[in-house]
Amino acid sequence: MPPVFNIAEYKERISKIKDRMNREGIEVLLSSGPANMNYLSGYDGKSFYVPQGLILNIDEEQPIWFGRGIDSNGARLTTWLKEENIRAYSDDFVQSSIKHPMNFVVDILKEKGWIDKTLGVEMDQWYFTARCFTVLKEKLPNTVFKDATLLVDIVKQIKSENEIIYIKRAAQILERVMQVAIESIDVGIRQCDAAANICHAQTSGTNKYGGDYPSGPPIVQARERASTAHLTWTDEKFQRDEVVLLELSGCYKRYHCPMNRTVYLGNPPDKLKYVAKTFAEGFDKILDFIKPGVTCEAVEEYWRKAIAGSDIVKEARIGYSFGVAYPPAWAEGAASLRPGDKTVLKQNMTFHVIPSIWQKDYSFGMSEAIRITADGCETLANVTRRLFVK
Amino acid sequence: MPPVFNIAEYKERISKIKDRMNREGIEVLLSSGPANMNYLSGYDGKSFYVPQGLILNIDEEQPIWFGRGIDSNGARLTTWLKEENIRAYSDDFVQSSIKHPMNFVVDILKEKGWIDKTLGVEMDQWYFTARCFTVLKEKLPNTVFKDATLLVDIVKQIKSENEIIYIKRAAQILERVMQVAIESIDVGIRQCDAAANICHAQTSGTNKYGGDYPSGPPIVQARERASTAHLTWTDEKFQRDEVVLLELSGCYKRYHCPMNRTVYLGNPPDKLKYVAKTFAEGFDKILDFIKPGVTCEAVEEYWRKAIAGSDIVKEARIGYSFGVAYPPAWAEGAASLRPGDKTVLKQNMTFHVIPSIWQKDYSFGMSEAIRITADGCETLANVTRRLFVK
Repeated sequence: MPPVFNIAEYKERISKIKDRMNREGIEVLLSSGPANMNYLSGYDGKSFYVPQGLILNIDEEQPIWFGRGIDSNGARLTTWLKEENIRAYSDDFVQSSIKHPMNFVVDILKEKGWIDKTLGVEMDQWYFTARCFTVLKEKLPNTVFKDATLLVDIVKQIKSENEIIYIKRAAQILERVMQVAIESIDVGIRQCDAAANICHAQTSGTNKYGGDYPSGPPIVQARERASTAHLTWTDEKFQRDEVVLLELSGCYKRYHCPMNRTVYLGNPPDKLKYVAKTFAEGFDKILDFIKPGVTCEAVEEYWRKAIAGSDIVKEARIGYSFGVAYPPAWAEGAASLRPGDKTVLKQNMTFHVIPSIWQKDYSFGMSEAIRITADGCETLANVTRRLFVK
Repeated sequence: MPPVFNIAEYKERISKIKDRMNREGIEVLLSSGPANMNYLSGYDGKSFYVPQGLILNIDEEQPIWFGRGIDSNGARLTTWLKEENIRAYSDDFVQSSIKHPMNFVVDILKEKGWIDKTLGVEMDQWYFTARCFTVLKEKLPNTVFKDATLLVDIVKQIKSENEIIYIKRAAQILERVMQVAIESIDVGIRQCDAAANICHAQTSGTNKYGGDYPSGPPIVQARERASTAHLTWTDEKFQRDEVVLLELSGCYKRYHCPMNRTVYLGNPPDKLKYVAKTFAEGFDKILDFIKPGVTCEAVEEYWRKAIAGSDIVKEARIGYSFGVAYPPAWAEGAASLRPGDKTVLKQNMTFHVIPSIWQKDYSFGMSEAIRITADGCETLANVTRRLFVK
C-alpha cells in the first residue's frame, strides 16, 4: 500500500514548499495540519486529535513524521518516508497534563541540531493548540518563530493534474450523493433516514471509485433550522411546505467536491422561486466571468453586480479554495472570494462558489465547485442549478 | 426547538463550573471546545472550524456565546441563552490574516469591564489555536491567564441521569451498527460498501431514536491496515484469511457510545483465537473489578494482571472517559485508564475500556463502553465479546 501519489509528485510539492520557506526566511517548518501532512507525506490517519506533524528542514530531502506510537505503522503504510524519519512518542504523552508531545518535538530538534534556526509553525491551524506553541517557545529560547499558517495552503491551492483527477472522482461521487439526497427527502420521511442514505452514498461512492469520509457531516437543514448555517439533521419527519437546505460533499482519497442545493416540499413561496431564478441567472453570468488573472475580490464584486436589482443581500464571503482536507472543514485557508482578497486566479485552482443565504425570513442554498481552466472555469459536478420542488 | 436538556440542568452544570472556577481562582472562563459549549449552553453547530466560544463570568447567570454571523441563528435555535448574550462577528473576520476573531472577544471583555480579571482559557483544546492565545495575550496586558483545558471536562465526566439516558440511546444505535457491520463484512465485498452500511446504520439510528454523526468516521481496517490504529477503509474488496478491526460509535444528540470488535474472514490463526479468548476472560474479570472508589491507574494495573501469563503486551492506555463530543474525537480529556492517573471512579462516570492491540504481527480489537454504577459497573451496549468468524 504505497502513498496515494507517486514519489516524484511528493518531491515536487516539497520543492515548492522549500521555495516558499526560502522566500519567507523559514529554515525549518513544523506543519501540523492533517491536510498539509497528507499533501507532503501521504500520511492518512484519523489520529489528528493527538499532536502530530511533519518537520521539514530546508536542507533535507524528506520531512520527519512525528506522532503517537500506535499510529506509527499508519505512517509506515501511507507515507513515502524512510524508516528513520518516522518518529513515534510513547503513550504516556497522550492527553497528559504532565508530558506534552511538543517536548518530544523539542528533543528531535535538539538531536538534529535545528534549535537555533527559524522555525515556521502554523499558528492558526486547529491542531496546533496554544499549549503546543507555549511549550515550544519555552523550551526553545534560541529559536526564531515565524507564522507559517498559510505556507503549505498557498502552494496547495494550485492543484496538480493528478489532484484534479481525484477531485473529479469526488465530483462523480457527489453527483450520485445529490441524486440520492433529492430522492430521499420527502414528506413523512425522518430527516435522519434521508441523511443515512446520503452518508451511504458518500461512503460507497461509485462502482469505480469508493468514497472516503468527507471532512464535514451532511448538512441537511429543514424548516426553521434552515435559517442558519451549519446545522445538521434531527430525527423528526420532513413536513409539507418546508424548505430543506443541503450542503454535501463527495470525497475520494481525502479530495473533496462540495455543493449546496435546496429542496422545497410543496408549493414554494414566490419569494423562494424568485431567489432561485436570480441565483441560477447569477451563476450563468459569474461562471462566464471567472478566469485566470481575475482576483478573488473581483469575483465577489461581480456576483453582487450579477444579482443587482434583486433584493438579495449577502454579507458573508461567497466562496473559498478547497481540496485535500480532514475534519473539521474542507475549506483551504489561502483564498476566499470576498472584498479585500487580492489572490489572482490561476489555472487548476479549485473554488467552492457558495453565495447561499441563511436568514430568518428565507434561506436558499445553491453553489458550485469549480476548477479554473486555461481560459475560464468549469463546474466539477453536474447537478441542475434550480430549486428542487417535490 | 429548545435546547436538548431543560434549563435547570444547564443551570446546575453552570453552577458546578463556577465552583471549580472559584477553586482555581478563575473569574472569567473562555471555553471554546465545541463539546464544552454544548454542555453549558446547548449550542450544536458544525461551525467549530471558525473561532467561537462561551465567555462565562463567575458573577453572571449565563455565558455569552460568540461566533460567526451566519451561525448566530443556530445559537438562537439551540441554546438557552438570552438574545443579548448571543454575539456574532462579521464575516470579514473569517480565515482572515488581518482581522482575527479574538479581537472581537477582546472587545466584548472590554465592554463588560472584564479585562483586569483572571481569565481561564483551554490551552490544549483543538479549536483554541496558538494564534487565538497570542492575540488575547497581546491585547489584554492586564489579564492574568490560567490554563482551564480540563476545567469543564472534569465536571463533565460525571454524567447526569439525563445524559446517561442519551448515552444508552447511543448504545442502542451502536448495537444495530455492530450487527450491520458484522453482517456486511465479507469476502468479495468492497470495504467502502460495508463502511457505507455502517454509516447508514449510525445515521438512521433505531426506529425510536435517530442517529447523529459520530465524532469520528467508522474505523474499518483490513489486512495490513489492521497493524496500526486510526486508519479507515479503502475501496478494495475484503479477501479470505484477513482480519478486520472495527472501531465504531453510536451517537445520539452528540452523546456517544463507542466499541471495538474484530472480524476474521476464514479460519483464524491459533494466535488470534488465543488472544480473543484471553481478552474475553480478561474482560469478565476487569468488569467485576471496576467500581466506585477504584482509581483509573488501578484499573489498568488490574488489566495487566487479568491477562498475566499470556504474552500480550499493551503499552498504550487502556481507556478513557467519553460522552458528549464533536470531531475529531469522542474521548474526553479528564481521565485515562493508565499508570499515573489517580482519578477515582465515581457513579455515572463513563469509560471506553479499550485494551486493543495494533501490531505488525497481529492485531485485535475488543472494547466495552461502561458506566460506573452505585456498586460496580455496567456495559452499555450488548454485543458478544468474541472474535467474529465468517
